[in-house]
Amino acid sequence: MTTKKKDRKRKKAGSAPGTLQHVGEKRNEVARIIVTEYNADELSERELHSGQIVMPPADSGTVTWYHIYGVHDETLIGQIGQIFNIHGLVLEDILDTMSRSKYENYGSYLFFILKMVQPDSILSHVQTENISIIVGPHYLLSFQEGEHDIFQPIRERLNAKKSTMRTFGPDYLAYTLLDLIIDHYLTVIDRLDERIDEIDEQLLMEVTPQTLPALYQVKKRAMVLQNIFSPHKNVITELLRDETDLFSKQFELYLRDVNDHINQINESIIHVRETVMVMLDIYLSLVSNKMNNVMKFLTIIATIFIPLTFLAGIYGMNFKYMPELDWPWSYPLLLLVMVTTALVMLAYFRRKGWL
Amino acid sequence: MTTKKKDRKRKKAGSAPGTLQHVGEKRNEVARIIVTEYNADELSERELHSGQIVMPPADSGTVTWYHIYGVHDETLIGQIGQIFNIHGLVLEDILDTMSRSKYENYGSYLFFILKMVQPDSILSHVQTENISIIVGPHYLLSFQEGEHDIFQPIRERLNAKKSTMRTFGPDYLAYTLLDLIIDHYLTVIDRLDERIDEIDEQLLMEVTPQTLPALYQVKKRAMVLQNIFSPHKNVITELLRDETDLFSKQFELYLRDVNDHINQINESIIHVRETVMVMLDIYLSLVSNKMNNVMKFLTIIATIFIPLTFLAGIYGMNFKYMPELDWPWSYPLLLLVMVTTALVMLAYFRRKGWL
Amino acid sequence: MTTKKKDRKRKKAGSAPGTLQHVGEKRNEVARIIVTEYNADELSERELHSGQIVMPPADSGTVTWYHIYGVHDETLIGQIGQIFNIHGLVLEDILDTMSRSKYENYGSYLFFILKMVQPDSILSHVQTENISIIVGPHYLLSFQEGEHDIFQPIRERLNAKKSTMRTFGPDYLAYTLLDLIIDHYLTVIDRLDERIDEIDEQLLMEVTPQTLPALYQVKKRAMVLQNIFSPHKNVITELLRDETDLFSKQFELYLRDVNDHINQINESIIHVRETVMVMLDIYLSLVSNKMNNVMKFLTIIATIFIPLTFLAGIYGMNFKYMPELDWPWSYPLLLLVMVTTALVMLAYFRRKGWL
Amino acid sequence: MTTKKKDRKRKKAGSAPGTLQHVGEKRNEVARIIVTEYNADELSERELHSGQIVMPPADSGTVTWYHIYGVHDETLIGQIGQIFNIHGLVLEDILDTMSRSKYENYGSYLFFILKMVQPDSILSHVQTENISIIVGPHYLLSFQEGEHDIFQPIRERLNAKKSTMRTFGPDYLAYTLLDLIIDHYLTVIDRLDERIDEIDEQLLMEVTPQTLPALYQVKKRAMVLQNIFSPHKNVITELLRDETDLFSKQFELYLRDVNDHINQINESIIHVRETVMVMLDIYLSLVSNKMNNVMKFLTIIATIFIPLTFLAGIYGMNFKYMPELDWPWSYPLLLLVMVTTALVMLAYFRRKGWL
Amino acid sequence: MTTKKKDRKRKKAGSAPGTLQHVGEKRNEVARIIVTEYNADELSERELHSGQIVMPPADSGTVTWYHIYGVHDETLIGQIGQIFNIHGLVLEDILDTMSRSKYENYGSYLFFILKMVQPDSILSHVQTENISIIVGPHYLLSFQEGEHDIFQPIRERLNAKKSTMRTFGPDYLAYTLLDLIIDHYLTVIDRLDERIDEIDEQLLMEVTPQTLPALYQVKKRAMVLQNIFSPHKNVITELLRDETDLFSKQFELYLRDVNDHINQINESIIHVRETVMVMLDIYLSLVSNKMNNVMKFLTIIATIFIPLTFLAGIYGMNFKYMPELDWPWSYPLLLLVMVTTALVMLAYFRRKGWL
Repeated sequence: MTTKKKDRKRKKAGSAPGTLQHVGEKRNEVARIIVTEYNADELSERELHSGQIVMPPADSGTVTWYHIYGVHDETLIGQIGQIFNIHGLVLEDILDTMSRSKYENYGSYLFFILKMVQPDSILSHVQTENISIIVGPHYLLSFQEGEHDIFQPIRERLNAKKSTMRTFGPDYLAYTLLDLIIDHYLTVIDRLDERIDEIDEQLLMEVTPQTLPALYQVKKRAMVLQNIFSPHKNVITELLRDETDLFSKQFELYLRDVNDHINQINESIIHVRETVMVMLDIYLSLVSNKMNNVMKFLTIIATIFIPLTFLAGIYGMNFKYMPELDWPWSYPLLLLVMVTTALVMLAYFRRKGWL
Repeated sequence: MTTKKKDRKRKKAGSAPGTLQHVGEKRNEVARIIVTEYNADELSERELHSGQIVMPPADSGTVTWYHIYGVHDETLIGQIGQIFNIHGLVLEDILDTMSRSKYENYGSYLFFILKMVQPDSILSHVQTENISIIVGPHYLLSFQEGEHDIFQPIRERLNAKKSTMRTFGPDYLAYTLLDLIIDHYLTVIDRLDERIDEIDEQLLMEVTPQTLPALYQVKKRAMVLQNIFSPHKNVITELLRDETDLFSKQFELYLRDVNDHINQINESIIHVRETVMVMLDIYLSLVSNKMNNVMKFLTIIATIFIPLTFLAGIYGMNFKYMPELDWPWSYPLLLLVMVTTALVMLAYFRRKGWL
Repeated sequence: MTTKKKDRKRKKAGSAPGTLQHVGEKRNEVARIIVTEYNADELSERELHSGQIVMPPADSGTVTWYHIYGVHDETLIGQIGQIFNIHGLVLEDILDTMSRSKYENYGSYLFFILKMVQPDSILSHVQTENISIIVGPHYLLSFQEGEHDIFQPIRERLNAKKSTMRTFGPDYLAYTLLDLIIDHYLTVIDRLDERIDEIDEQLLMEVTPQTLPALYQVKKRAMVLQNIFSPHKNVITELLRDETDLFSKQFELYLRDVNDHINQINESIIHVRETVMVMLDIYLSLVSNKMNNVMKFLTIIATIFIPLTFLAGIYGMNFKYMPELDWPWSYPLLLLVMVTTALVMLAYFRRKGWL
Repeated sequence: MTTKKKDRKRKKAGSAPGTLQHVGEKRNEVARIIVTEYNADELSERELHSGQIVMPPADSGTVTWYHIYGVHDETLIGQIGQIFNIHGLVLEDILDTMSRSKYENYGSYLFFILKMVQPDSILSHVQTENISIIVGPHYLLSFQEGEHDIFQPIRERLNAKKSTMRTFGPDYLAYTLLDLIIDHYLTVIDRLDERIDEIDEQLLMEVTPQTLPALYQVKKRAMVLQNIFSPHKNVITELLRDETDLFSKQFELYLRDVNDHINQINESIIHVRETVMVMLDIYLSLVSNKMNNVMKFLTIIATIFIPLTFLAGIYGMNFKYMPELDWPWSYPLLLLVMVTTALVMLAYFRRKGWL
Repeated sequence: MTTKKKDRKRKKAGSAPGTLQHVGEKRNEVARIIVTEYNADELSERELHSGQIVMPPADSGTVTWYHIYGVHDETLIGQIGQIFNIHGLVLEDILDTMSRSKYENYGSYLFFILKMVQPDSILSHVQTENISIIVGPHYLLSFQEGEHDIFQPIRERLNAKKSTMRTFGPDYLAYTLLDLIIDHYLTVIDRLDERIDEIDEQLLMEVTPQTLPALYQVKKRAMVLQNIFSPHKNVITELLRDETDLFSKQFELYLRDVNDHINQINESIIHVRETVMVMLDIYLSLVSNKMNNVMKFLTIIATIFIPLTFLAGIYGMNFKYMPELDWPWSYPLLLLVMVTTALVMLAYFRRKGWL
């Protein structure tokens, strides 16, 4: 929502639900499909073309993981929908890169949408990527917009010999994907924290006009991040509350652990926002303080010299009958009066605490 | 409520409930009635006059949809109430164009009020239109204030050959109407977002006095929109919670999808309000920054020249005994003192960071 | 609470509960009692003196409505309490004009306190009046502080021939009273809305010092109104939740309708408060904008003339050896320098966007 | 918490629960014990020394009320604990004058802590006093810090001949004590309200530097009061929810009445805080308004005279060749120019609305 | 979270759950293990090396408490995990010094993480220490980051002859540890309160530029403290709600007492934040007040002398034909005019209330 492009397409209001229509940036790359099949003993991984996708046989004791790069291929998504008997609304959500994160139980499979944020983009133009996951009894489908292989660490763990992960079903695989995506946000928050620390250090040294836009930028980013991240909370709590055979109860503790991380991230975002608010207050106070000093300086200079200039003006007048002008001690006396006036003024300012 | 006209009528406090009395702008057009009858095989659509409305026979396997343009015709609404046996409070609500959006289960029929916002009006004077929908077991009644055919896309889908829509009952038709109305708000929010983007771009280039009223206008509009939109949330959640045979459980997933859109719209409105708040803060900071620069310039000019002018004033005095006046090097020396004073001042300002 | 007079009496802390003691402005008028008896066929209405009040016989099919003007008559209230067997705490609440709105189920009767606000008083010194209602199986008692006949519209509807109202029991009568009192608040809010519109129009034309107190007055009034109105929400929701034979379930829809109005009023009050906040922000921005213009004008005039005055001061000095003074082109040259300086300054201001 | 003295003792972290240790101001007075025994027919009241306290016999039909002045006597409290078999945590709470208000059901007795605020202290240094009450089946123990007889009105009602109070058990006595303590807060709020009215009247007449600290003082006091009062809400709601034989269900209506008062007090405190906020905003606007007037005056005087002084400076120069100096009409003409300039300036200011 | 060091390690996203990896400051000290075994009659305490840890035999009637200093020893934690059959996620949490406080029931043992704050660090760089506690049926394991013996008071109570504590199981020991850790926060809040009192006293005497950073520092600290402390609330409420044999119901009252303390601490933190907010408002008002006085002084001096200087300038002009210059009374008359002007100005300022 926050990364809306002006040239994005939006689904036409009033069109039938389940109409397959890609919503998002137009892409031209060919979608790629990687299939990973594993059980406790074996693992195979290869790239397929779209015609090779089949519903894997049940009860083979093997977990089949299809990972699709590129959700802009409406035909491919429709085809997969038919093979795996996926509801039209699910396919529509997969194609819509503006969908919010959510979890839905469709009985014979579970459906997740999760949003990833590119950590380095958090300080400039926030880039998000929707990851859709469908968890069936013996298969898992995952969809991503771009081509970057974000699940590389998971593949490595699967490949490891004697990986306990291979002894579990697609529910455990889904958990590892969820966990990876959520943990990604910690890095995003670290970026924000580092930026805040930078600004804070700078703030202590000098008040510059760049500080204000920098703070507002972090504030806006934290708002956007909160907007993107907040729906994840429901994903896990609803999954935990759900009565489903597709997610083994033995992994509940792992889900609670993910939930703890989500809470931690949520509170970190709130903390970032509060910290920025305090820093903004400090900055504005510092600027106002500096301005007050400028004004006080003006006041002191002006209030000292304005009366003195008036006195000089008096004796610059050209009246014929000004007896003081002819006295020999007038000039030094007047200078004395001027110095005294200035000193009295300065003493007054000091007593008032203005100096 | 936000679109109240000063010349609107309000129902007299203390009048009997169910008194049929139109509340809203006075209109003179004749109300129009369009009836659409369809089943899986056939569809007919024609305009009726008020005397032709009848309760369609049950069990004919046909869905009858009466759409009434113009809710100001109290006689027509009363007549329909009698034919379809509608509760007086429902008729009263249909006539009252200031009613808030709501859902009510009257046992033998369901009643919805939904508010539409004219997208282009969101930036000027917000124009809303109340759509009332009554869903019976084999019929649907819909009422709208104006004459614009907002349900055109639905009619087109119904007309399409082999439309699966025609195989479902009036509950599915009601869902498509709800979905259309809710999706309309996305366009409204897009208008606000575009306006914000415009102001944001302008804000980066130049601080103009027009920025402030523009921002407050968007803020007011977002407040009004929130006020209008917020009751829709309850419409869907109460319908989902309800135990009724009039809305088939098979469409629950579709309702949840509408609910997701409502949440998305709600969060977008909040995001618009927060963004405007941040932009207001930025604007005010920029203005204050500019003003501070103006004041600093004044201070620097004044504090440099006020002491120098005083010095010039001293030697403009007409005392007889001012020995300096007669020295040959006085004038160039004084000029040197003046330049030095100015340079010292400038150095002081630079060290203080005021320059 | 908001209308507390300094000369009000407060019940002594530590006195026994049920001690009958009037709390409020002292009044000297004699309390008046109007009894209205009706059934589907007949209606009689007459004024009684206190000795004539009796518990109407049950099962006569007649509804008896006693309406008492003036709750300051402690003896009368005590007497009614004995005749109708009313709990001491109820009598105490009826006498206490500072009680908050509430609903209580005492088994053999229901007890309501509702607060009315005099619409025209909302903009000056808010005047409230407590209406207490006791609903028995075949009778209704209503109590009000003042003498103004607020239930006149209800009496008219009762008097109407063939009024369906006469066929229902005291519960329906109670509903009409509740509905009337709640609808009264719509008028109060209209007054606030009109005042806001007035101020808003004025704000667009001119910034006057009167705007600020006017806005704060509306804000204070909205706060007071919210404080008075908010307990009504619970009155209806608790009545709806309650399991009681004294309020027929057939009127539940009517109560839900009242509830809708209460929600509407609540949101209107919130909307008023938010609107006033935005208008205050706009006003303060306008004032600050105007002040900034004043300051900029000072700065421009001062920074242009201060250096020029200094130059004039230089050549007003009386040194003997100032060669420029004797040159024939000095004067026009200096004037040229001065005009150039002023023009350069103006160009600088324009480039900086200060002009 | 808000009345913490720097010399207060705090219980050592890590000490055993139930360690009897007085927390609060050190006091040296001897604790006093008053016992009141009553039934429907008789009442006796006398002072005891600590050795005379005994557990009163059950089933005697007599209510025994021990009231202890001075909770600093750790030995006495310990002794009472043993006689009445009171839990160590309860004794600890009685001794700790910093405990917050609460209600706890210990099965064989109920335990209350309530906080009283000295009304006259609310505007200076808030003084609170903890009242602990233990309600057994046929006895009541009450403990207070100081020596002031706060329950005098209750004793008077008990002493009254044929007091219905004497026919009830210790639960009704506990209710009267609760009611008295809660009603006390109404007086405290009256003090705050009166103070606000005073400041409000003053604010209308004149802006003085004393207004700001006065407002902040009231705000701080309201915050402290809210902090002290808020836990009382739970005391009553938990007692009402509780299933206990020690508090007869027949007094539930009385407790609901106390609850109404608590709600009223809570809303009054919130209203006080909101009112102070609005008054602060008004005050700051008034001060800013006054300052703006001062600045405008400076601007007008300065911008009128600075150019005129420059003109005078021009003709104060001593150039030899200044033809204007010799013209006879120069002086009156220049004066005319000066007056015109000043008038034009004034007209400009008036048109701009600065005058 | 708030004490994050830049050189902290974070667990790699995507790594397997239960991977033992220390998160926090790198430490080099050797971890120390203290075992305390006790029953009603005996107590022994000694230091072990890691190989000596064994699962204590059940049903021996003895409580075994292992306390481990230093959670950076991944091998040791893994070893303990195997001996006591602890879940991998628990071990991971023990090693992660950035975990938030929590409670989890693992069936055969209960797991707590609690955070301690070093009281003296609250005003500078907040130092926290994670305490992890595992409560089994007859043993308790506690883990802390540093080497400071925070549980010394507990050991002393256990050592005391006839300590009733020794007659209870590990659940009571866990309660005493919880109570100690929570009570520790009271000291932390006292530090903040004392700091606020210091600043408040200073604020009454003089406005210094040091006040602002001092207030913001306290505000930031209170925010950090709230962030650290808030999860403790859930620890106790979840433990109370839990149905577990590992925590005897007889200690429920003690847990409720801890809960009261948690509420008290939470409200104290809120009170600290609110107090700081009010003080910030007072400070900013005082500064603004002082600045206004400076500006008023400037205005008064400038507006008095600028017109006078202009007058002096007039008669400093060198026109040949200025008749006033030759009048004998011109000079004293002008002086009189000047004094009168100044006095009129001063009177005007006084009447306006600017003086």
